[in-house]
Amino acid sequence: MRLLKERILRDGEVRQGNVLKVDKFLNHQCDIRLFNEIGQELRARFPQEITKILTIEASGIGIACIAGQYFDVPVVFAKKGRHSNQDEHLYRATVHSYTYNKDYEITVSQEFIGSQDRVLIIDDFLANGKAVEGLLDILCQAGAALVGVGIVIEKGFQDGGKKLRERGIDLQSLAIIDKMDEKQIVFRE
Amino acid sequence: MRLLKERILRDGEVRQGNVLKVDKFLNHQCDIRLFNEIGQELRARFPQEITKILTIEASGIGIACIAGQYFDVPVVFAKKGRHSNQDEHLYRATVHSYTYNKDYEITVSQEFIGSQDRVLIIDDFLANGKAVEGLLDILCQAGAALVGVGIVIEKGFQDGGKKLRERGIDLQSLAIIDKMDEKQIVFRE
Repeated sequence: MRLLKERILRDGEVRQGNVLKVDKFLNHQCDIRLFNEIGQELRARFPQEITKILTIEASGIGIACIAGQYFDVPVVFAKKGRHSNQDEHLYRATVHSYTYNKDYEITVSQEFIGSQDRVLIIDDFLANGKAVEGLLDILCQAGAALVGVGIVIEKGFQDGGKKLRERGIDLQSLAIIDKMDEKQIVFRE
Repeated sequence: MRLLKERILRDGEVRQGNVLKVDKFLNHQCDIRLFNEIGQELRARFPQEITKILTIEASGIGIACIAGQYFDVPVVFAKKGRHSNQDEHLYRATVHSYTYNKDYEITVSQEFIGSQDRVLIIDDFLANGKAVEGLLDILCQAGAALVGVGIVIEKGFQDGGKKLRERGIDLQSLAIIDKMDEKQIVFRE
């Protein structure tokens, strides 16, 4: 997706520890026009029947909600940690965060995803793929069908994308970065 | 906003501890069509010039992003807690959570809100108003102008809304609940 790659080159900053800072437009300040372009592109890449979009708080929510307009389906976001005012009937999965070097629990109410659902997972970043694996675990518990995984930026030099593709999952990343340092960002063709 | 009130009556559940559970359509599963109606209504109530929308993670993000389309401005969401890959130049405020009975820090990068901005705050709920007060504190630090505060559901029996209105703030809540228990939900006229 050319518009997105141009934006990453213009506004992205590479920081120590393989961090790509894109908070000018993606995950702190949200460029809603760009989100609409992303939503349309995701719909074009997943033309199949989809009944629910699943994402994870916090930075996946805005993209998933804007994209949800093009799919005309509800968006469910997995919550991080146990919430005191939440229903007891929850799907639960454990996700390892490399950024913070700890495990956290994600939960989705059993009311909102079931065996009749055909689900598209959407998230802003894919690196080691641990968050997506947690969401797949929840879909498995729900007996729901996975249609695919739509990602805005994949860090292609980490192995999350490779592992998902090896499992036969239809993973569509709108920008895949194969190499980055302070001088350059190299996208996969 | 009639459509919203009907939806609260149909799908909302009152739980112990003044909890109104609306996760079927607002803050766990997101009804994107309803979010669009909410976005349009907020634009109608705030026709003034606005340059940024400010919200807080997590459940404010989806509503703010959908609403952002009608204002055609970027959406900035305050982050809860300090994030390791975030810039050092942050506005910080402390928010007290009555739900969890603890204080937490919210942060916004100084890059994204400045003295030239005219800001609309959007959030899903207003009860004691502590989250909004934290966001107001950040706008004050930024020297930005507050245009108003747009809320989806205000718990009118708690004092957050009253305090904001007494300060002369243009607070627009799309549904104000004056009384609720397991048998009924009473909206303010």
